Amino acid sequence: MAKKPRTSAAEQREIDPKDLSPRDRKTLGQITGLADTVVKAAASGRDPAMDIPARTLSNVRYNKTKRFIEMGAATNRRQLFNLNQAKSYMQTMLVAEGAKRLIVQGKTTSLRGMYYLLKHTIEGTREETFDDQEESDSVIEDLEVAIEALREELHVYAKNAGAMVGEITLIDSGDTIDCTRMGSGGYSIPSIVEPEVIQFAKCNAKFILHVEKDTVWRRFNEDKFWKTHKCILTHGGGQPPRGVRRLLYRMHHELDLPVYCLLDNDPWGYYIYSVIKQGSINLAYESKRMAIPDARYLGLRSKDFEECGLSNSVKIDLSDTDRKRAHQIMKYPWFAHKKPWQKEIEKLLENGFKLEVEALISKDISYVTEEYTPQRLADQDWLD
Amino acid sequence: MAKKPRTSAAEQREIDPKDLSPRDRKTLGQITGLADTVVKAAASGRDPAMDIPARTLSNVRYNKTKRFIEMGAATNRRQLFNLNQAKSYMQTMLVAEGAKRLIVQGKTTSLRGMYYLLKHTIEGTREETFDDQEESDSVIEDLEVAIEALREELHVYAKNAGAMVGEITLIDSGDTIDCTRMGSGGYSIPSIVEPEVIQFAKCNAKFILHVEKDTVWRRFNEDKFWKTHKCILTHGGGQPPRGVRRLLYRMHHELDLPVYCLLDNDPWGYYIYSVIKQGSINLAYESKRMAIPDARYLGLRSKDFEECGLSNSVKIDLSDTDRKRAHQIMKYPWFAHKKPWQKEIEKLLENGFKLEVEALISKDISYVTEEYTPQRLADQDWLD
Repeated sequence: MAKKPRTSAAEQREIDPKDLSPRDRKTLGQITGLADTVVKAAASGRDPAMDIPARTLSNVRYNKTKRFIEMGAATNRRQLFNLNQAKSYMQTMLVAEGAKRLIVQGKTTSLRGMYYLLKHTIEGTREETFDDQEESDSVIEDLEVAIEALREELHVYAKNAGAMVGEITLIDSGDTIDCTRMGSGGYSIPSIVEPEVIQFAKCNAKFILHVEKDTVWRRFNEDKFWKTHKCILTHGGGQPPRGVRRLLYRMHHELDLPVYCLLDNDPWGYYIYSVIKQGSINLAYESKRMAIPDARYLGLRSKDFEECGLSNSVKIDLSDTDRKRAHQIMKYPWFAHKKPWQKEIEKLLENGFKLEVEALISKDISYVTEEYTPQRLADQDWLD
Repeated sequence: MAKKPRTSAAEQREIDPKDLSPRDRKTLGQITGLADTVVKAAASGRDPAMDIPARTLSNVRYNKTKRFIEMGAATNRRQLFNLNQAKSYMQTMLVAEGAKRLIVQGKTTSLRGMYYLLKHTIEGTREETFDDQEESDSVIEDLEVAIEALREELHVYAKNAGAMVGEITLIDSGDTIDCTRMGSGGYSIPSIVEPEVIQFAKCNAKFILHVEKDTVWRRFNEDKFWKTHKCILTHGGGQPPRGVRRLLYRMHHELDLPVYCLLDNDPWGYYIYSVIKQGSINLAYESKRMAIPDARYLGLRSKDFEECGLSNSVKIDLSDTDRKRAHQIMKYPWFAHKKPWQKEIEKLLENGFKLEVEALISKDISYVTEEYTPQRLADQDWLD
């Protein structure tokens, strides 16, 4: 009952297909293509089925040529006339229909919004289409890999996290954003940064400095590091979300800007670098649109405690988990054959402590912006 | 050894006192005043001591006239020549010195930065000035209440959280920020929003709509609600941080804008409203600069499930903690004598379920921006 007026209201608001962006038209075509296979199968008397690429660790591999993690060819078949698969089949179709609705109305929503949009009691039963958001999140990922579209292209976004400031002017949804005039807060990097939403208008930057945390980013912004060094300054609030990774990717490739990462000297910092560089195992199918194999690791390094003459007060003991993670990361195929990286991680373990970027403040409030980073850049002293 | 060059480098960079902002000069004066009491006591042969207002639940009360939570008059004496208090006495002085250093250099830092700035091994001992950040965080709060300065006025900030968009133009650190042209990401509300950093240049807004979450905010921004309804749109990423609360306060008082809150229909939503309106128990000493007693609660309300004709699918069962919290909130002095609030919370308990704002999407993607909120505003249907 609730469904009827909703659909008709939605239909009234549909964008004329010719006014859709080329990307939206493409995504829509892919969704329609998926639906067509069902119709075709039904018409020819076969069981409707979909093949969804397997999102499992065993179906992920490091591509040495492309230098990033990618998905293998394994797929899982999802059939309508199979009791175990009928529900997930139906869920996949629902998500596809939801994405279509968003696209044709020119709207976007959050993962939680998509869950509420699609959740309802199946007619004549007490069964819910989705029991919790985890179910719909997972099916959204299925659809992404199935039709090779980013979640953001399905008009679904995650929480904004990460900010940017510096020598770049961009157009975001038609508004001109001059990142040299963004005050202390900076430009909040949205989740959807596809060319339909964000275009680069002008760029005077020579490189991108990506820092791990908001607090460190703020030190650099306050000291106008981006002005002195003609760069773009970004942070991802820890592990950078997709929007930040995708924007870094676009700026790196489209504007030809090198990316330097300033992260904590601990396994988590190494991991963040690894994700920026080679992609993540979870989102391996998106590596080709997010991974930046040429990203460089500027610091902090395990040698910095001695090189910068830091005091014992700033040491943080490694935990057992840290040690375990460090050993795992040493074995990553993209670190395993790199002597400098092996030495870096060995030295961390030998030190027995980790260091946060903020620890450099014990030298001087602006040591990180005035001495540490400029010196490392001048010396080309980084890992990659 | 590390200390000497740091101090002299810092001294070189000191801002000419006459170039400091009036607010910074005042804070500096308060810090100096604190130090003077020590010198004076020492000179007159008395034991140096400080009185720090007690930050305990028993020293907090609801002021019915001012309509917010404020601190009582109880203080704790902190003496230098008392073995139990010597360390915290020293820590308070260290934090005051750190704040002074930041102010005279015109820099700011994070809570974590302050910790690293002040942490060192006390000469000739193996004792650290601060064992962990919790210690320095707590002493920063002591100093705030002792000299009646906001943490932000001590040049210490927390993580940015929260965004703003809408019919206002402000100056942030000299940059003009037109909040009608902030794209999809919006203006990231900084932690420090004092008049020295942020000035209001132009405002065409008639009110402020504050929503709980980034995801809901985004729906309103995408639908350009702020344009249609001539308003300012903010969110605080859940419980709004000080920067967001302080900015709401300033816009409410300086620009005479009513504040409407759109929060989840659950005890957490009520609590967020309560903090915006009456201040929080933890930060009672800041209520007078943050609390907005006239803030209005627009929704979601316990009656909305029926009024909006929502489906059972969007109900989320109340947990035991939810019930307990609801009963506590009912007894808050500022809710206890308000019948509509008692009815609101009773109805929540009677319903046995809570509702998220996102649940309205099950009606239509833009139901919340096109029907729910405009109708409530038109009907003046809110709680306060």
